This record gives sequence, C-alpha cells and structure tokens, in this order.
Amino acid sequence: MPFDLAKKLIIDTIDPKPLGEEQIPLIDATNRIISKDVISNMDIPPFSRSTVDGYAVKAEDTYGAEENKPVNLNITGEVSVGEYPELELKKGETVEIVTGAPIPKGANAVVMVENTQKKENTLLIYRAVTQEENVMKRGTDIKRGDTVLNAGQFLGASEIGVLAAIGMNYIKVQRTPIVAVISTGAEITEPGKKLTPGKIYDINAYSLSAAVLKSGGKPVYMGVIPDNEIALNKALKQALDSSDMIITSGGVSVGPRDYTPKIVNSLGKPGVIISGIAVKPGKPTTVALIGKKPVFSLPGHPTSALLIFYLLVKPIIESLVGEKVLLENTVKANLTTRLFSAKGRKTFVTVKLSRDKNQRLIADPIQTGASGAITTLSKADGFIEIPANQQFIDSNEIVKVTLLRSKKI
Amino acid sequence: MPFDLAKKLIIDTIDPKPLGEEQIPLIDATNRIISKDVISNMDIPPFSRSTVDGYAVKAEDTYGAEENKPVNLNITGEVSVGEYPELELKKGETVEIVTGAPIPKGANAVVMVENTQKKENTLLIYRAVTQEENVMKRGTDIKRGDTVLNAGQFLGASEIGVLAAIGMNYIKVQRTPIVAVISTGAEITEPGKKLTPGKIYDINAYSLSAAVLKSGGKPVYMGVIPDNEIALNKALKQALDSSDMIITSGGVSVGPRDYTPKIVNSLGKPGVIISGIAVKPGKPTTVALIGKKPVFSLPGHPTSALLIFYLLVKPIIESLVGEKVLLENTVKANLTTRLFSAKGRKTFVTVKLSRDKNQRLIADPIQTGASGAITTLSKADGFIEIPANQQFIDSNEIVKVTLLRSKKI
Repeated sequence: MPFDLAKKLIIDTIDPKPLGEEQIPLIDATNRIISKDVISNMDIPPFSRSTVDGYAVKAEDTYGAEENKPVNLNITGEVSVGEYPELELKKGETVEIVTGAPIPKGANAVVMVENTQKKENTLLIYRAVTQEENVMKRGTDIKRGDTVLNAGQFLGASEIGVLAAIGMNYIKVQRTPIVAVISTGAEITEPGKKLTPGKIYDINAYSLSAAVLKSGGKPVYMGVIPDNEIALNKALKQALDSSDMIITSGGVSVGPRDYTPKIVNSLGKPGVIISGIAVKPGKPTTVALIGKKPVFSLPGHPTSALLIFYLLVKPIIESLVGEKVLLENTVKANLTTRLFSAKGRKTFVTVKLSRDKNQRLIADPIQTGASGAITTLSKADGFIEIPANQQFIDSNEIVKVTLLRSKKI
Repeated sequence: MPFDLAKKLIIDTIDPKPLGEEQIPLIDATNRIISKDVISNMDIPPFSRSTVDGYAVKAEDTYGAEENKPVNLNITGEVSVGEYPELELKKGETVEIVTGAPIPKGANAVVMVENTQKKENTLLIYRAVTQEENVMKRGTDIKRGDTVLNAGQFLGASEIGVLAAIGMNYIKVQRTPIVAVISTGAEITEPGKKLTPGKIYDINAYSLSAAVLKSGGKPVYMGVIPDNEIALNKALKQALDSSDMIITSGGVSVGPRDYTPKIVNSLGKPGVIISGIAVKPGKPTTVALIGKKPVFSLPGHPTSALLIFYLLVKPIIESLVGEKVLLENTVKANLTTRLFSAKGRKTFVTVKLSRDKNQRLIADPIQTGASGAITTLSKADGFIEIPANQQFIDSNEIVKVTLLRSKKI
C-alpha cells in the first residue's frame, strides 16, 4: 500500500479524538491542552484603578489649571493598593492615590504627582486632566462573559497567567493518552540486565517511550516481552486494558517467529487494517485497531521504528492529546549528495545538519544500510522525504528537513 | 544601567554553572542533560550478525558460483536470533541463518536466500559472495571505548535509544535547578481564594512557574506573601534554604511599601548587583546574588515580568541546567506599524503574528500601555527589540521576532 494512502487510511479508520477531560490544579497544567472554552466570570480589572502615582480628582475640578495658574484642592485622604476606599470625593476635594489602587467614589481621573505640589492639606495642580485620564476602568481588559482562551489551546506561561488572572486555580484539560510500549524479539535483552551470547540490548522500548512523552502522551514502559505467543498475547491484553494505545516493535517481518500481527489481529475487531507499507524504511509496519484502541507494530530496526513513529504514530498521539496549534518543525537545507529513492516506495533519509563555509545550512545524508543502526540515531538531526514517483534528489538541491531535535547550528 | 551592560554584569557576576550531577533511571531521563561524556564499555553489535536471511558460508567456498553454474554446499544446521551458535563451519559446509543472528565460527559471509536453492541437505548457490558480504561485524557501529554522547547533550528519543543500546538503564544527568517563585503586593490574592474589594488575583507566581518549567527548571510555587517586611523576609530565607534561585515579582517600584530590594540586600553578600535597568518595560528590575544563589525581583506588571524573565532569567536557568545546544526560536516578519523606542532605553514590544493575503508573515504590535495587561499575555506570540540608540522601526520593515510560544500560522 502506498505510504500516503496508508497514512490516510490510518487517520480515517482510527479517527483519533481527545479522550475526555479531567480537572487539574492550574499549577500542574503547563503543557496541557484546554478541553473547553474558558469564559471569565469576572471583570478585569475588577474595579477602576489608577495607572499612576498621584491624586484622584473630579476632572472638572482641574479644568483651567496651568503651569502658572494652579488649581487648589483639599486633600481629604489617601488610597493605597489592596484596600477599598470608603470615602467619597466631593467637589473641590482630592485624595492621594498610588498605582494600582482603586479610584474612590466621586473621582473620575488621576493627576500625576509630577504635576502637583502639596502644601499641608492643600494640593496645587499645575495641569488639567480629562475624564478617565490615568484610569484603567473596570472590565477594560477582560469583561465578565468574555472568552479568554479557546478549547484546544496549549497552556504555556502566558495562558496559565490569563487563567490565574480570572481566579481559576483548577482547570479542565484533555486527558493525556496512555501509550503502552512493548519490545519483542528473541535476541532482545533489557538494558541493565546481563547480556548473554547472541543477545543485544533493547533500544526501542526506551527510545519510543521518550518519543511518546515528547509527543504529549504518557508512556508506559512494558519492556521486553519473552519470545513466545502466550507471553505476547498476555502482554498485549494487559496493555489493552490499561492504556489508550499500544506500540510494539520487532516481530513484524516474515520470519517463522514473527507472530505479532497474527496475535494483534486476534485481540478484537476491526483488527489489522494495514499490513505492510510501500515506504523505506519501515516496510513491514502493521497497524491495527482493537475497539477504539490503535495498535502500531513497528519494525525492530531502531532508526526505522523511530522514523515510522514520527511519520505515522506521532500525529495520532497529537490528535488524541487534542492539540490544535503546532509549529511545523522544518528547515530548508542544501543536500550534499545525490539521493535515490527505493523503487516504487516513498523513501525517508535521515540527515545531519551543519553549516558550510558560506554559512549555508547543509543536509548530509547518514548512510544507514547494514551498519550504523545505533549511531545513526545519535547523528540524525532530521529527515527528508523522496516521493515514490521521483527517481532521485540531486546534490545541491534545496530540501525540506523535518527536525528530530532542537539544535543550534 | 543600559540593558546590554546589565545583562553582561548579571552573567559575569552570577557565573551560572550546572549544579552537580545525579544518577536517575534512563526511562525517566527524557529532556534531561547528560553531566559527563558517555563511553561505551561494549562493542555494538556485540557479535558479528547477518544482515539478511540466507546461508552463512566461507566466502571462498562460493567463488565461481554463477546463475548457470551453482556451487554445492552441505547444510549442517541453522542459526536463529538470540542464541549463540556452538557449531563451527568447515570447508564445504553452510548453515541456514536469519537476519540479526550471530555468524557462526568458521563463516565469513552470508548468501542471500534469493540466490540459493535448497535440495534436502544440499544447498545450491547461484551467486558468489565476497568476504564479509551481508555481515555486520562486531563493533562496526560502536566500539568499546567510543564516546557515544557528550556532556551537555540533551536527552531526546534518539539519545535515550543510544544509551539503551549500550545497556545503560541508569544515567548521570545534571541536577535540575530548583527555582522558588514568590509574588508580593498588598492587592494580590491567590487564585481560588475569595477576592475582597480592592484586590486582584495573582498572575505572576503562576505564569513565572510555568516559564521556569519550560526553561528546564523545577519551579516551587510559593504563592503570595503577605504585604509586610517580616513575612517577606521569612519567605525569602525559606526560599534560599530550599532552592537554587529565587524569582519575586512586585514591590520593586519606588512606592513607600516597595521594600523587596532592601530585604533581599540584607540576606547576604554580595547582595543587590543591579537596581534598575534602562529597558522598557521592566525598568525597576532588581537582581541580587546571595552567596551563589541569584535573586531576580521582577516588576509586578505581568507582561513586563514575563518579558524580563525571557530576556534575563531564562538564560541563567538554562546555564544552570547545563544545556549546550539550543534552537534559537525566532522568525522574520514584516512589521505592520511604525514603532518608537522609549527614549534612551532598549525597548521590547510584544507582537501578534499572522499572515497577510500574500502569505507573508506579519508582526502586529500589541498596544499595552495602561489597559490590556492580561489580554496582552494571551495575544502575544513573540516580541521584537528596538535598540536604545534607534529612534524607531518603520512600518513594513522586516523584524526578528523571538517566539514566546509555538503556533502554526
């Protein structure tokens, strides 16, 4: 099945949507997604405030005040921040006020302290003010009933601040999808355990768990499942019960022991929906849907598994997370060598980014092939795509590189 | 003090360095920073492996094999993945082998199954192979003693995978800096509590805690400290004892109750190093160093506090975290209106990004001034900088926008 068709079929069949909301403390809500529009139930500011240090007045009392012809008013009190003034200003009166303090009743403007002179209980005003001058009126920032944030918005520092402003210390967010990560293969051993002859350490359960976390999901590391059908069947059932999605790796080629697709298909309906994709790397990728839970069975090769994760699994997790806005993480770079596509398969090639002597960004393909399965991972800054119907990309052509990590180059 | 000078003085005086290492499980190490170079104590692969399904041979036994003139070898066994073959290949012998399985002793190449025909215990080989063909030799990916990752590297999915590959299930990483976040101000009330007349809800302890988290630090939310010197003194001492750095906001202007700088200065040496910066917004910012612990006292205005955080505090946290590589998060955009700098002060202006009808990215300044303190936060996609010695940036000029959040535009 062609890659683009497979991708479309996966999205259409799984139809990934947020999994429901949960209410959490605002202080823990950074990086989460709002589940519904947030409407303010208060005015911001909640009262008219002074924006300067000075004197609250009736503006009309200051009319005609000039540098050489000050107006005199009686100082009848002072207003500080954090307290609501009981006093009411009458004609000919003024009260001292600081930035942020509530405008007292009867006042409608503030004269800046720089334009006044205090003589005991009398204030000389050297500049007239207009109504509402130096006043931030109640509700001018946010009005009760205003929508301050929309469903699907990501909670960064600014958005968290807006929610605090309207007094919310709890917020409803989309539930984080729980993604079980399983490695299979007779030769695979969990890191930290003793490596017996003929075995290698598992990479994928670790790298894919990290990738799930960075995509907004909550990974559940299930480690290496022993290489027999009963153990795998049991592990998959357990994962289905306790998670929203499963990612396995290994055991999807055509060897005699590659029974993962068969077992996955037996777990429920509709079962396997994709079995093999015309893509390089990642051809044996299998995708299933058990009830509403997607099961991605990725190849065992670590770079292939991670690449297919980024191409097919990450978008599904992000849709389950409910994120609406995303910065596409790509850069343009000059390709250093001619690259050929695999015949009839959309081809993805990992590249290392650097700058040439003219400070141009250049993309250097990483030779994977037989050797370098692991070092490829540590070298790859991103990947480029060669369409299935294109024979090659020429050296020096400008290519779009999808970044696999942030790096200052 | 000019902004650039203040920034240099802050970095030179604080001289922020990673705080020491801690060993944590690899599965929890995503997004952390490695504290020292990681050297492999094993070869990867740990044994020579077949890269194809086929038959292990002595290459010299296949010499001369052609489509019409096959070579005959005796099949003496098979090798699967995960087990170490006891058998040793003798001249004229071959064993069946699958991808990833160890090459048995005596063999030095693998013939692909496509180029063979099996007749009971005899194998017909139709294509000669050279030595090491279809073999990934022990140590070709990583050699024992190779440095696989460097101190200061960020642990993403790929790097986690590399560490798993060499069997590490624990890793030494830089300790995460603990940053206490405190709000002050008589008018400030914690979100979730009842708002009495004259009070407003605290924004900064929440937005700055979120910003600390996103910069790689561990925020400790200390909420709103009552507006008296004893309470603030006590809170600051407690924060110094339990954290690596303190951020306060509010109480740094020149009002009668703005005693934060005085108290901070009394806590230890060298004390306050910066008291006011020629920048707009953020002029009253105070920076102190108590022993080795930086104390940033930011203005109370939420947008100003967050902007000064991004400009001066975030780089310090990142240096304490120990991150070496960073993607500079900026875009170029066309400015929509002429912008003037504040006289003699470096000026930062928050902007909203969008695209015009020609799909050009445009930056629209957000009018802050007196009103809109909170909605500014939710609208700002980034900020631009006007140097102190530049009078204005003209409408339609291309400006560099430092992004405050990721957003697909």
